[in-house]
Amino acid sequence: MEKPLVTRRDLLGGALSTAVVACAQSVARPVDAADARAVYAECARRKDEAVQRLQAWVRQPSIAAENRGMNEGCEMMMQLAREAGFQRVEKVPTDGQPGVFATLDAGAPHTVGLYFMYDVKQADPKEWSSPPFDAALVDRPSLGKVVMGRGAVNQKGPQATMLAALHAFRGAGRKLPVNLVLVAEGEEEIGSPHFAQIARKPDVQAALARCRGIFMPSAGQEEDGAVDVSLGAKGIIECELTSSGERWGRGPKHDVHSSLRACVDSPAWHLVLALATLVGPDGDPAIDGFMDRVRPLSPPEQAMLDDKARRSSEALLKEQIAVDRWAHDVTYRQALEALNARPTVNIEGLVGGYTGPGGKTILPHVARAKLDLRLVPDMTAEDTLAKLKAHLAKRGFGDIDVNMTGGYDPNTTSVDAPLIRAQIAVYKRAGLNPLMTPRRGGSWPGWVFTSPPLSLAAGHFGLGNGAHAHAPDEYYVIDSINPKVAGLVDAMRAYVDYLYELA
Amino acid sequence: MEKPLVTRRDLLGGALSTAVVACAQSVARPVDAADARAVYAECARRKDEAVQRLQAWVRQPSIAAENRGMNEGCEMMMQLAREAGFQRVEKVPTDGQPGVFATLDAGAPHTVGLYFMYDVKQADPKEWSSPPFDAALVDRPSLGKVVMGRGAVNQKGPQATMLAALHAFRGAGRKLPVNLVLVAEGEEEIGSPHFAQIARKPDVQAALARCRGIFMPSAGQEEDGAVDVSLGAKGIIECELTSSGERWGRGPKHDVHSSLRACVDSPAWHLVLALATLVGPDGDPAIDGFMDRVRPLSPPEQAMLDDKARRSSEALLKEQIAVDRWAHDVTYRQALEALNARPTVNIEGLVGGYTGPGGKTILPHVARAKLDLRLVPDMTAEDTLAKLKAHLAKRGFGDIDVNMTGGYDPNTTSVDAPLIRAQIAVYKRAGLNPLMTPRRGGSWPGWVFTSPPLSLAAGHFGLGNGAHAHAPDEYYVIDSINPKVAGLVDAMRAYVDYLYELA
Repeated sequence: MEKPLVTRRDLLGGALSTAVVACAQSVARPVDAADARAVYAECARRKDEAVQRLQAWVRQPSIAAENRGMNEGCEMMMQLAREAGFQRVEKVPTDGQPGVFATLDAGAPHTVGLYFMYDVKQADPKEWSSPPFDAALVDRPSLGKVVMGRGAVNQKGPQATMLAALHAFRGAGRKLPVNLVLVAEGEEEIGSPHFAQIARKPDVQAALARCRGIFMPSAGQEEDGAVDVSLGAKGIIECELTSSGERWGRGPKHDVHSSLRACVDSPAWHLVLALATLVGPDGDPAIDGFMDRVRPLSPPEQAMLDDKARRSSEALLKEQIAVDRWAHDVTYRQALEALNARPTVNIEGLVGGYTGPGGKTILPHVARAKLDLRLVPDMTAEDTLAKLKAHLAKRGFGDIDVNMTGGYDPNTTSVDAPLIRAQIAVYKRAGLNPLMTPRRGGSWPGWVFTSPPLSLAAGHFGLGNGAHAHAPDEYYVIDSINPKVAGLVDAMRAYVDYLYELA
Repeated sequence: MEKPLVTRRDLLGGALSTAVVACAQSVARPVDAADARAVYAECARRKDEAVQRLQAWVRQPSIAAENRGMNEGCEMMMQLAREAGFQRVEKVPTDGQPGVFATLDAGAPHTVGLYFMYDVKQADPKEWSSPPFDAALVDRPSLGKVVMGRGAVNQKGPQATMLAALHAFRGAGRKLPVNLVLVAEGEEEIGSPHFAQIARKPDVQAALARCRGIFMPSAGQEEDGAVDVSLGAKGIIECELTSSGERWGRGPKHDVHSSLRACVDSPAWHLVLALATLVGPDGDPAIDGFMDRVRPLSPPEQAMLDDKARRSSEALLKEQIAVDRWAHDVTYRQALEALNARPTVNIEGLVGGYTGPGGKTILPHVARAKLDLRLVPDMTAEDTLAKLKAHLAKRGFGDIDVNMTGGYDPNTTSVDAPLIRAQIAVYKRAGLNPLMTPRRGGSWPGWVFTSPPLSLAAGHFGLGNGAHAHAPDEYYVIDSINPKVAGLVDAMRAYVDYLYELA
């Protein structure tokens, strides 16, 4: 669910104007240099095959929110894993969409985990300049050739690039430097409601427990080349609040003529009044006890944000997200801190009664608000949901149905974890000085890995660029004409480097 | 816009259990009895023709809200008027959809006005058991054969019945007892924004000024046979409130990832907080000065409601509108008073951001509320709109766009007007003791007639039954198997009676 609309990662990679992508030069450690060069060459040879694989994947919609193409999407995920060299590939049933568990034993001393998603966000073809499931190759000014389609950057593009790197190892006749454990889910875009059933299945958990850490492939570069390393992510609750005459026992049980408002209660007003209690006058969270467990940033985390505020471009970010000023008119540094450290209560959507053009004189019997709440350590999804419900009940809105459709706790990984140190080392050898982020503003279900009993390091890794996740015209860069941004082949090579580094 | 969902008129006709429809007997005054009998017979002979005319009319959608079939609808309205005997039939252009002005000179001493609408409400075929523009003849349990389709009861059915009565006069070789002036509009369902341009065109206004009053044909019977006579209607403002990042200067100018809520303002929350100021804790209007011009009911009006509360069925109404209790848990008498005398602020619809199934992690850049405000004397639409805008501006919501899409002032007609006295007389001779209503809770643009310079009496008249205006499966009864409810032929005869009475 958690690729932002305007960038692929946490929206905090700003302008690192001096960064230069240098992946094509040898960046692997000397001991692996010959192997790496052979695999590098194979990456270039296998580019067309990798592009076609990505296109075929995008052309298979699998949208959990619409229960569309999920079976096919899961089978394809399994097939992609088999073809990339995973010896054991299994479907993992859940109470929702199935997951995939796969292992690749390279006979290596270390094992690394991979987290994939095979579902994508919804797409309305009317809004796209190229149909979302055509996966067309399109030229984008100042970027180069891209694959355009739903899932291109979130997350099929980066995942297909990682798989292409595995094909390159095999094509070059080189053994992988690490063993791999892959867990994939089909419900990431609806809040991963059953992902714990996959990761905590005994044999899956046992395999994950052997990992040095787990990462999700990601197109981590801004258009100015900058990358960041994030040490965690906010948790999330996605929920739908429904006010209805039926549950309330007041107002009508079906839509009636609006003149009746004179003597009949309105579930829509009931919802609006309930919502208004959830925030203060500036829209800040006002749920009882919401801030109780918020852990302040530590001095090292504060220092990361100081650095990020200095080295990244506020203007570029504001332009990307079409914002003139931050909430409360704070500074960029303060906005970054809010994005990292402040929990939120957001309205994703409002829907009730007549929603077409003009008006229609009805008194609706039901109205809904779709909310997401972002959580920071040490908040938990369970506790926060209970607080939301208690808050509403205390104020006479206990009848409003709060249906949590997905969500999970926040996650945190130490900057000293080998998974993170390896990222920093690879980026630095590529000439990039990564921006460190205590916590991405978005969310992903990394808590399944970082929390006990696994307590693994978890994060994202990858070069390359793309944008418009969750939005129309989503794309992923194949042939970059921007010297600061890696194209597909260089992004493959970065995964090669990372696997060597993790070894 | 103003036919309620569950009944055709003002929702206040309750159970008049002893009423029996007796139209088929001679109810005309002795002086006209022979003529009336001849016209009555012709009504029966022309039933099939009248049904086919109504079906053809329903099959021509004309929906102003969607600008669909409006030209065709206007041409058809003109053709229907010509065929019914109007000698002069003209299209009246407006800044919106055109109106129709027609006159029928019968050489009679008195002239009566007719108000028609040729537009209908939107319809979603998915929700209908018979397609909304098929105008199928359908059997309805305990009612009989009905025409089902959009506009069947609101307002094509009653209007077609009135036109059929004119055909019956001609077919019987009888002169109409009154001259007629017809004004029809095509924007009733969107709040009649240009109707004054039709009625106040000099030649139209001059023709209307000769009228004893003006009425709209209406299927005025409840299933228990009860009819009411209403002495006015509430006014209305329909408006859309839009909160957007663009106008606000805060928040994003396009939808962005919801994680940004931590540091970016939310136009959706801005709207919710603005809405919450418009009502008190129980959803009652709280707009500054909203109640200042509210005129209390007079003792005679109070007496009408006392009678109505006694003679109509609270249980039946509650069942029809699927309501267990009134707002504030008031008595039926108090609910009737609110419906007659209390202005309202209603939410017709809420729409913003993601409105599909499940959730979508966005921070929407725009959110909208569709409101209607019902007005009582001596409130005016212009003054109330100004108060709404001033209220919002005073509280920091001046950026929220308030777009009034339609509406007009309330209207009132004296119980002593010949138009009203004639209604009461006809109903009483039909064995019905009409329920008097000071003001219908719904609205219609009668203010154009009742306000200066015309200052005409205005109202609705008609027997017959139908339901589900503005809702799926709208219908109008053709062959009644309910002895208390008039079918098409008896409803035609009631118009015959009314015209004689008005003479």
